[in-house]
Amino acid sequence: MTLAADSEVDVLIVGAGPAGLMLATWLSQLQIKTRIIDKRSTKIMAGQADGFQCRTLEILDSFGIDRVWKESNHMLEVSFWNPDENGVIRRSARAPDTPKGLSRFTESVLHQGRMERFFLDHLKETGDRVRVERPIVPSLLQVDEPEINNPSAHPVTLKIQHLTDEQATPSQGNNIPNGLFRSNLTADDTDDLIRKSSGKEGTEETIKAKYVVGCDGAHSWTRKQLGFKMEGEHTEIIWGVLDVVPITDFPDIRVRCLIHSASSGSLMVIPREKRVVRLYIQLKEVGAGGGAVDRSKVTPEQILKAAQKIIAPYKLDYEQCDWFTAYQIAQRVSDGFEKFNRIFLAGDAVHTHSPKAGQGQNVSLQDSYNLGWKIGMVARGQASSEILKTYATERQQIARDLIAFDQKFSKLFSGRPAKDVSDETGISLEEFRNVFHQGAVFAAGLSVDYGPNILVVKEDEGKEGTVRCRPDLANKLKIGMRLPSHKIVNQSDALAIELQKLLPSDGRFRLIVFSGDISKPEIYSRYEKLGEYLSSKDSVVSLYTPQNSPRDSVLEVLTIHSAKRTDIELQSLPEAFHPLDKSKGWDYWKVYADDESYHEGHGQVYENFGIDRDEGCIVVVRPDGYVAATVAVADTKSLEAYFERFMIKL
Amino acid sequence: MTLAADSEVDVLIVGAGPAGLMLATWLSQLQIKTRIIDKRSTKIMAGQADGFQCRTLEILDSFGIDRVWKESNHMLEVSFWNPDENGVIRRSARAPDTPKGLSRFTESVLHQGRMERFFLDHLKETGDRVRVERPIVPSLLQVDEPEINNPSAHPVTLKIQHLTDEQATPSQGNNIPNGLFRSNLTADDTDDLIRKSSGKEGTEETIKAKYVVGCDGAHSWTRKQLGFKMEGEHTEIIWGVLDVVPITDFPDIRVRCLIHSASSGSLMVIPREKRVVRLYIQLKEVGAGGGAVDRSKVTPEQILKAAQKIIAPYKLDYEQCDWFTAYQIAQRVSDGFEKFNRIFLAGDAVHTHSPKAGQGQNVSLQDSYNLGWKIGMVARGQASSEILKTYATERQQIARDLIAFDQKFSKLFSGRPAKDVSDETGISLEEFRNVFHQGAVFAAGLSVDYGPNILVVKEDEGKEGTVRCRPDLANKLKIGMRLPSHKIVNQSDALAIELQKLLPSDGRFRLIVFSGDISKPEIYSRYEKLGEYLSSKDSVVSLYTPQNSPRDSVLEVLTIHSAKRTDIELQSLPEAFHPLDKSKGWDYWKVYADDESYHEGHGQVYENFGIDRDEGCIVVVRPDGYVAATVAVADTKSLEAYFERFMIKL
Repeated sequence: MTLAADSEVDVLIVGAGPAGLMLATWLSQLQIKTRIIDKRSTKIMAGQADGFQCRTLEILDSFGIDRVWKESNHMLEVSFWNPDENGVIRRSARAPDTPKGLSRFTESVLHQGRMERFFLDHLKETGDRVRVERPIVPSLLQVDEPEINNPSAHPVTLKIQHLTDEQATPSQGNNIPNGLFRSNLTADDTDDLIRKSSGKEGTEETIKAKYVVGCDGAHSWTRKQLGFKMEGEHTEIIWGVLDVVPITDFPDIRVRCLIHSASSGSLMVIPREKRVVRLYIQLKEVGAGGGAVDRSKVTPEQILKAAQKIIAPYKLDYEQCDWFTAYQIAQRVSDGFEKFNRIFLAGDAVHTHSPKAGQGQNVSLQDSYNLGWKIGMVARGQASSEILKTYATERQQIARDLIAFDQKFSKLFSGRPAKDVSDETGISLEEFRNVFHQGAVFAAGLSVDYGPNILVVKEDEGKEGTVRCRPDLANKLKIGMRLPSHKIVNQSDALAIELQKLLPSDGRFRLIVFSGDISKPEIYSRYEKLGEYLSSKDSVVSLYTPQNSPRDSVLEVLTIHSAKRTDIELQSLPEAFHPLDKSKGWDYWKVYADDESYHEGHGQVYENFGIDRDEGCIVVVRPDGYVAATVAVADTKSLEAYFERFMIKL
Repeated sequence: MTLAADSEVDVLIVGAGPAGLMLATWLSQLQIKTRIIDKRSTKIMAGQADGFQCRTLEILDSFGIDRVWKESNHMLEVSFWNPDENGVIRRSARAPDTPKGLSRFTESVLHQGRMERFFLDHLKETGDRVRVERPIVPSLLQVDEPEINNPSAHPVTLKIQHLTDEQATPSQGNNIPNGLFRSNLTADDTDDLIRKSSGKEGTEETIKAKYVVGCDGAHSWTRKQLGFKMEGEHTEIIWGVLDVVPITDFPDIRVRCLIHSASSGSLMVIPREKRVVRLYIQLKEVGAGGGAVDRSKVTPEQILKAAQKIIAPYKLDYEQCDWFTAYQIAQRVSDGFEKFNRIFLAGDAVHTHSPKAGQGQNVSLQDSYNLGWKIGMVARGQASSEILKTYATERQQIARDLIAFDQKFSKLFSGRPAKDVSDETGISLEEFRNVFHQGAVFAAGLSVDYGPNILVVKEDEGKEGTVRCRPDLANKLKIGMRLPSHKIVNQSDALAIELQKLLPSDGRFRLIVFSGDISKPEIYSRYEKLGEYLSSKDSVVSLYTPQNSPRDSVLEVLTIHSAKRTDIELQSLPEAFHPLDKSKGWDYWKVYADDESYHEGHGQVYENFGIDRDEGCIVVVRPDGYVAATVAVADTKSLEAYFERFMIKL
């Protein structure tokens, strides 16, 4: 091995799966000096994860990535199949797969490789600042402990090895017969399939980083270096997965199905993009001796045979198979998520569980979505490193919730259906349906509720100089949860737009001023005063925005008033709410009305958030779209108190 | 000049503006051997057309091109400004720019160069079969008249010259100062800006074509070869156009405005993508002597000054200008649209008019959208060349309607506002608003109503063996007009989908079977019989579909039933309605319900089309989405009679 010269970087990401690519996307967006390495020589081509929750789709949309929603199969319905009195499976119920009104998106399915492709394309199209480097493995991790509290230090050292092609056999190819590794059923672009020689093959390199993030999967090398343990259970049940184009007379093959057969096990149907369907099939015969499954022993034919038994009397066959695998459920959480506030773990590196609830990829993406802007703000010198501590507290709880949900759901799905009420070892199908429906908001990623911490204020802190939080002013809005979306109408051009469209992931905090009905003089006057404050040199905007940067580059002020749109003229509003740029004119995209639109109805955002149309409030929204606090319109002191907790003054 | 060898091609398109690119897109889609040449060495970079009608957006969507809708500015509101009693302009009314309920799209604005880019990208991504060749000018057009009725002949000969870079100065650059030719305000990709050497520069080539289509603009070389004349008026009014990022306190700068000043002329505001606004400004001082305007004499400063006068007392200025021009309105239609059924003209080559109603690019695109599938079907040997004759009859009427609309609209917009009711030479602002509103459906491209011809049957033809057309069975649907879109629900996966999404532009006729409520035995039995007919060897599907092609490759059968979706099982329906493919299984994307969806309401398509929920009907839809005929569900004889008029049996 030859040694390359040392280099410095702000953030080094180990692993370019969903969690790693999401983090790279955030850091690229925030223009943080970042490198990302992966041991595979190419991205995932088929199989693996495929479920996209509502919340994940909202997050992708906030980066301008709409291709998952466009290409995926939108899974609208779930049906439950159970044995009848003769032991023959029958449809016992149908329901919407995503409860109504949760999100502007619904649960969707697309193979993981497409999403990795979209991230890679997005990185390239938005400046080409971060590229995945592969195949590379890390070999040594060291921390210069005395330097960990020095903001300008690069205290983490990572030694990496650039692999040769021979060394880099993609792990996913190990047990898969020729022809299944690369999908021939679902579209993909090919320009990165053939890895170009980097010229560094066989060399070693030492990188000094401010932060290292291990997104390196269930067998995380990074986690092992930190000495953390995965805690939890390894269940005995073995499942097979088939991605096939099915030929079947089973009527519900294009909806999500949860099938419990009388005595042949359970099967889940996940209809996918194109004509593909994913089948999760309980395997009874294979690996019954316990211990980790030897996946090389499982063939697609065996899995199909098990599926045919469960789905009988319906016929099931296929000619085209895209991918298959077999796995044993391990429900585990790491006992640590970070070390020294400098090294973090995300995704499968800290939680593993059953894939059947479609959660894994989503929770992984959301881990690093939670982390990215925090590292970005600290690395830019905008915020104190204290905010990094919220990563572990916020996400560890989510991982625990996930495992609890998965344990309940998996057990009920794997269980033998009860024959009647006196059958105590069998599972109640009614209980199963209840757990499924109760879990729907969780499964959509919309039950995430971050507890109070330096970034989240849930109650009035009760003293002068603290945040006089007023959750009562928006009593249907939950502080700590993501801001839901409703249509509002642009004051200047009458466009009806989703509120979430105003919250792109660009690293800015937002003050959403629900000003009330500013066509009333006394309410306007309060709004005008707020505008004067925001324009003043001591306001939170002035305190944290560099002088030569646009006024909205750190804290963006948005207005949603409750007057009739046509009763208001933008030009009469204080400039703080629609800043003037000397060469580009006024900003026409900051003031909105909660009013009827020409073509898309009335979003009723005041009503949906429980905000009084006169009293109003200011909602502080974090860069990741979660509600940080709610304060009174006139309460500029609380805004100051909130940002003082963690922002660094210029 | 050296001479390249003769080559043969099915279709040769002269001109790669909107009309030419639309035609190339159609022919590429239909895999017709096509070449397209253009005299410019690059596509449009700024300025020119920018308005997109609802119908154009529907058509683009039918090719899978959604980027115009995504990038454009959606123009939601129009406001009217007129002098008050003191001669000061005031907002006199506001209205939605696109009337409610017309289309799932609304009028949108984006510069023409972006749309050309989307067409070029689309051609590349969908097989890269047709590439624009430039810079090339045609030099000789000859027709071998004895061969014009021979389907396998290539009777049109076109001699073309491959230009050198020196010869190919883009015409749009002529009068525009340095820096304005390429937009620096609106996004564009750059990979085709630098023309690669074709190696053919300075050579001449002779091409033999089955069809030649002149899409070569207002000064069409092709039209001149055919000896056609443009008939109509050249008005005296001169207009200036500015594409700028305005700095203004005028309140309605982000909505479409029609401003009549008391005595300084009129101004139209068209808010565009990014922060750009297009201003159409009546110029009084320039070129008042009549005759064609010498555009080189008009400067942006002059145009701005005229605009400032009209918009006073509001201030208007800019630092960034993207494009400007000046023009005189010529309202003209060509006295011929085709010759020998072999050479066709489309777009500006056959109609010119004022740009202010945002019609030009749209009517041009729709000309060749009308022509493309017809040439395609004839070139493939599927249809008789008789259908080509409908191009001129259908589109000539549209061109005349366009000029009539434009004359009325332009005159009223250019006129001096009447001071009071006794002011007879001034124009009534009320009349102006009425004309505007009455023209809204026309302006949206949705009043197009093709008259009866070989492709369109509007009434019962009254005899055995003819089309017993039954417009009464869908009494709110207009035969000859485009099929409107409403949400329907997929039988197999519960997805709510726009009906128009089932009508991609792929060259297929469609039989939309509004089967009625097939949960009722007598209605199901009628539907079952239709299924038997369609599967029989003498059905219209069997007659025109090659044996080794999929059953839906020429005539696609779609079902929209009126039963509750959950009362129907797809697998119990006749195979004709959801064909089985041996390796891909059943087709789950052909049967839909007019039912409530889980998340997007009830589309009520039966009600909106005036179809009885029991009686139903079959709607025949042309490959361009226009309704061709409506017949009774059991009336398979009429289906045969319809297709016999022009389809060629195998």
